[in-house]
Amino acid sequence: MYSYSEPIARLINRFSRLPGIGPKTAQRLAFYLLNAPAEVSRELAEAILEAREQIRFCQRCCNLTTADLCEICRDDSRQGDLLCVVEEPRDVAAFERLRDYRGYYHVLHGAIKPMEDIGPEQLKIKELLQRLQTEPITEVILATNPTIEGETTAMYLAKLLKPLGVKVTRLAHGLPAGSVLEYADEMTLASALAGRREI
Amino acid sequence: MYSYSEPIARLINRFSRLPGIGPKTAQRLAFYLLNAPAEVSRELAEAILEAREQIRFCQRCCNLTTADLCEICRDDSRQGDLLCVVEEPRDVAAFERLRDYRGYYHVLHGAIKPMEDIGPEQLKIKELLQRLQTEPITEVILATNPTIEGETTAMYLAKLLKPLGVKVTRLAHGLPAGSVLEYADEMTLASALAGRREI
Repeated sequence: MYSYSEPIARLINRFSRLPGIGPKTAQRLAFYLLNAPAEVSRELAEAILEAREQIRFCQRCCNLTTADLCEICRDDSRQGDLLCVVEEPRDVAAFERLRDYRGYYHVLHGAIKPMEDIGPEQLKIKELLQRLQTEPITEVILATNPTIEGETTAMYLAKLLKPLGVKVTRLAHGLPAGSVLEYADEMTLASALAGRREI
Repeated sequence: MYSYSEPIARLINRFSRLPGIGPKTAQRLAFYLLNAPAEVSRELAEAILEAREQIRFCQRCCNLTTADLCEICRDDSRQGDLLCVVEEPRDVAAFERLRDYRGYYHVLHGAIKPMEDIGPEQLKIKELLQRLQTEPITEVILATNPTIEGETTAMYLAKLLKPLGVKVTRLAHGLPAGSVLEYADEMTLASALAGRREI
């Protein structure tokens, strides 16, 4: 059976490990890089290595950053009593595109998924409880995805946080059920933010 | 306007340069790599750099290889009088999957595309003519894609090669017009090969 020479086969294999990249797409990407100017390959490889080396968690909100504190946590002009809890760093980006949320964030880095053995202890919940003790937070918006896992996580957090005397809210169900927050259009996300309700 | 920190933004940007990768997919790939074990990133980056460094053109057929001659050109048991001219290395792979073609190949690395300023001189045609003078080739199968560019290239090559006294054939039109050879199912490709006609 004919196969591509080893470095090409390996490159195709490495690409096809990425989510949503099948063998045909992996092959297309590999040949694209082999034909493109050498700096396209070099810059992609460097960007991959640099991001992996330089990026770490913000010490306060667990967002991704190159510094001790992320850009948002370093901004003192924001509303210190409002905290928006999201699953992933890309959800922070989705809220920031709105421009009308001025509180801070907390990134859980996932949701409770019993089927995948991801429990509360794998999420940044310990760090969240820590913040509630040291920061003047009066309202926590649980902005996990309106999926089963996101709802489970929100319920879990609500039970944990309400005894601490903080107001706990959830994004309004303007979001279609089963959808993913990241793909919501700005209007939908904005109305969900405005209509948030206490739980 | 909020943006991801520089290394993430750069990684997303580098991914979105690749063909068929939009900004959302680029973001998804970047976050996947940031969350996956470090060796996933390292191995991808290494594969990109190694492939770019080690891969060169076969001195005979211009296929991609790590040696002076590719695996197929090194195989003396093949039929030396039959040459199949294709646009890209992946087309060689498509024919080899058939297992019923036993001649050699010549890879043009593209097709004539006047709209993109790609003329015959950018393709490996000089190398093809060279081979016809030194190798015992009696039939050249023009297996460029059945697209406008592929047909143009085939017509151009037919005019060039027929005066040299070699039999010039084209894959039978079992291939749907406007399609791309790479995606043809094996049955279609095999019947196109069997029904090839002189032009």
